[in-house]
Amino acid sequence: MNQTAELANRLIAAPSVTPATGLVFDEFEAMVAPLGFDVHRFTRGDGEPGSEEAPVENLFAIRRGPVGSRHFAFAGHLDVVPPGEGWTSAPFAPEVRGELLHGRGAVDMKGAIAAMVSAVEQVPQDAGTISFIITGDEEGPALHGTRALIDYMREAGHQPDLCLVGEPTSVHRLGDMMKIGRRGSLNVWLEVDGAQGHVAYPHNADNPLPRMVAMLSELNALHLDDGTEWFQPSNLEITDIEVGNPATNVIPAKAKARISIRFNDLHSGASLARQVVEIAERHGGKARPVISGEPFLTPPGVFSRIIADAVEAETGLVPEASTSGGTSDARFLRAVCPVIEFGLCNATMHKCDEAVALADLDTLSRIYARIASAVLAQR
Amino acid sequence: MNQTAELANRLIAAPSVTPATGLVFDEFEAMVAPLGFDVHRFTRGDGEPGSEEAPVENLFAIRRGPVGSRHFAFAGHLDVVPPGEGWTSAPFAPEVRGELLHGRGAVDMKGAIAAMVSAVEQVPQDAGTISFIITGDEEGPALHGTRALIDYMREAGHQPDLCLVGEPTSVHRLGDMMKIGRRGSLNVWLEVDGAQGHVAYPHNADNPLPRMVAMLSELNALHLDDGTEWFQPSNLEITDIEVGNPATNVIPAKAKARISIRFNDLHSGASLARQVVEIAERHGGKARPVISGEPFLTPPGVFSRIIADAVEAETGLVPEASTSGGTSDARFLRAVCPVIEFGLCNATMHKCDEAVALADLDTLSRIYARIASAVLAQR
Repeated sequence: MNQTAELANRLIAAPSVTPATGLVFDEFEAMVAPLGFDVHRFTRGDGEPGSEEAPVENLFAIRRGPVGSRHFAFAGHLDVVPPGEGWTSAPFAPEVRGELLHGRGAVDMKGAIAAMVSAVEQVPQDAGTISFIITGDEEGPALHGTRALIDYMREAGHQPDLCLVGEPTSVHRLGDMMKIGRRGSLNVWLEVDGAQGHVAYPHNADNPLPRMVAMLSELNALHLDDGTEWFQPSNLEITDIEVGNPATNVIPAKAKARISIRFNDLHSGASLARQVVEIAERHGGKARPVISGEPFLTPPGVFSRIIADAVEAETGLVPEASTSGGTSDARFLRAVCPVIEFGLCNATMHKCDEAVALADLDTLSRIYARIASAVLAQR
Repeated sequence: MNQTAELANRLIAAPSVTPATGLVFDEFEAMVAPLGFDVHRFTRGDGEPGSEEAPVENLFAIRRGPVGSRHFAFAGHLDVVPPGEGWTSAPFAPEVRGELLHGRGAVDMKGAIAAMVSAVEQVPQDAGTISFIITGDEEGPALHGTRALIDYMREAGHQPDLCLVGEPTSVHRLGDMMKIGRRGSLNVWLEVDGAQGHVAYPHNADNPLPRMVAMLSELNALHLDDGTEWFQPSNLEITDIEVGNPATNVIPAKAKARISIRFNDLHSGASLARQVVEIAERHGGKARPVISGEPFLTPPGVFSRIIADAVEAETGLVPEASTSGGTSDARFLRAVCPVIEFGLCNATMHKCDEAVALADLDTLSRIYARIASAVLAQR
C-alpha cells in the first residue's frame, strides 16, 4: 500500500455514518497535527440521534505560511452514507483485493481526504497558507456542517483565496472531469385539501385529487429554460404523490405530492419557489418550498487551468469542466471564495462494495500537491 | 317496546360485525321457525378471520303457501359494519333512550329484518309462499353471501316472483324513498412502471409520475353520459394515488392509483373496464378492473305501485322512486326476479349511536305486511 492508501485505510476503519463525530476526527487530527496544522474542532446540534438536530462534528485546520502569502483550502467531509446490504467484506473493515481498496467512504470521500493530507506533506510550509475545512455532515441534512464552518472561519478571520472540494468528480478514469459549478436544488411539498365522502354521493364530498392532478400536470409541463453555456437545462421531477386511502368507496379528504427542481443560474431558488406557489394556489393547493442549494459557477479561468494542468501532468487527461450532477458543499463554500471540485472516480459511491484503485490514491495526492503549489505560487 | 322493537332488540344484542356467523342466525332461526318456516343454513369460506375468505353464514327460510301460489321474498343481511368509536351506550347492548332504540344495526338492517318477521305473522300462511334470503356478508366483500344464497335457491328450485330488500332507503321520514335501481360499481387499480434514479440524473431514470398524471387527467376528464330518465349521470372519482417515495432526491420506480366509477344502465362494467384499460395502456400503464356490481333497474310498474300504496296507507307519504346511492345485494338478486329496496331512515347508518325510532319499527312491519299481502294476492 502506498502512503495515501495507508491514510485512507485508517479513515475508513473509523465508522462514520452521517452525522459523524469523534473517532474519525481523532484520526484526521492525528494525521495533520504533526504536519504543523493548528486544529480547531467543534460540535453543533443537540438533538436525538436520527433527528435533523443530531450532533455533528466539524474541524478547521490551518498551517500558516509567511505573512501576506496566499491561502489555499481543501474542503471535504468525513461522514459517509449508510453501508446498506450486500457487501463482500465488512464496510468499515477496509480490505485490499487486487488493485482496489474496499470500504465505505473509499471514494466519497475519505480517499480524497487522505490524498489531501499526503499532498500537503509534499508542499513546503513557506509556500503559503493551507487549510482543511472538514465536516461530519455532508451526506445528511447539512444544517450544522459546512455552514457552521463558514461562520467559524468568518469570525476567526480565515479567508481562503481558492477552495478545492474533494468530491468524486471523475467518471470513467481519474482526471476526466472536474465540477466548476453545480445546479441549485429546490424541493416543494404540495398539498390539496378537500372534503371526505362516499363515492356514491360525490355532491356531498369535494375530491382534492382532480385539482392535484391538474396542478402536477401544469408543473410537469413547465419549460424552465434551454440551459446556458455552462449549465444543462433546469429540470423538474414529480418525486412523490401520497393519498393513503385504502377504501375503494371513499373520496379522500387530502392529497400530498412533492416535486424536485434542479436549476441553473438563470434562476434563484426564491424565484422558482414563487412560481410553484403561484401555480399551486391557482389550483386550490398549498406549496411549501425548501431551497437546499442555490446554483454556483466558478467560470473557467486561472483556477480551472491550474487544475487541468495538474491533472494532465499526472494522468495525461484534460478534465472536462462540468456542472452536472447533484449538490455538494460547494454550494455553501462559494460564498467564501471561488470553488472547484475534483476527486476520485464516482462509479461505486453510495453503493455496496465501494472501492478505490490504490494507484488513483497515489496519483490524486500528486495532483493535489501540484494544485496547492501552483495556487500558492500565484501572485 | 312494541313487538318489532323486541325482535330488533334481540338481533342487535347478538354481535355480528361482518362477516357474521352463529349467534345472530340462531336468534333469527328461533324467530321464524315457530312461524312455520323451514330453515336452511350453510357456511361458506374457509380462510382466516379478516381475510376475504373468512367464513360467512347464510340462511334461506321458506313458508310454503298453497300449490301454485305466488312467492314473495324478503331479503336482507344480519352482519353489521364495525361499531367504531364514540358510542353513548355499548353498540351491542341495545338501549332505548326517549323514542329511539340505539345499537349497531338498528337501521342497517336488523330493525328491518325484525319488521319482516313481525310482518309475516300478520300474513296468513294460505295467502302464498314467503321466504327469507338472509346473509351474513353484505357489508364485507360479499363473495360468499347473497351470491351463494342465489346458487342454493337455483339448485333447490326456489324461485320468488318478487323480492323486497330491507335496506334503509328512507331519508328524512320513513316512507319518503324507495330504490327501484342502483348504479353499477367498478373500481380500477392503475399502475405505471418506470425506472428509479437520482433526480440530478433524470436521463438515467424513467419517471412514471408524468405518465400517471396524464393518465389520471384523461380519465378524470371523461364524460360518461348525461344520465337517463331513472339514473343520474355516471361518475368517475380518483380515489387514491400512492408512490411511497420518502427520498427527495430519488425519482421513483412505480406509481399506483385507483379510480371508482358508479355507472348507470347506459354502460356495463365490462364496457367501462375496456375503456379505462385502453386509456391506461395508451399512457404506458396497466389497469386491473374489478366490477363489484352491474347497474339494475326495476322500472316503475305494479311492484313499485304496491309498495307506494302500502307506504301511503301507513304514513301518508308517496315514496320517491330513486336509483341514487351505493350498491346493495339487490345487484345480485336482480338476476332472480324483480327487486325493489325499501326500509328505515338511513341518517345514522354506519355511524356511531345508530338508532331507530320505535314507532318506525312498528309502522315498517305494517307496511311490509301490506306489501307481502298485496304481492301474494296478485294473479
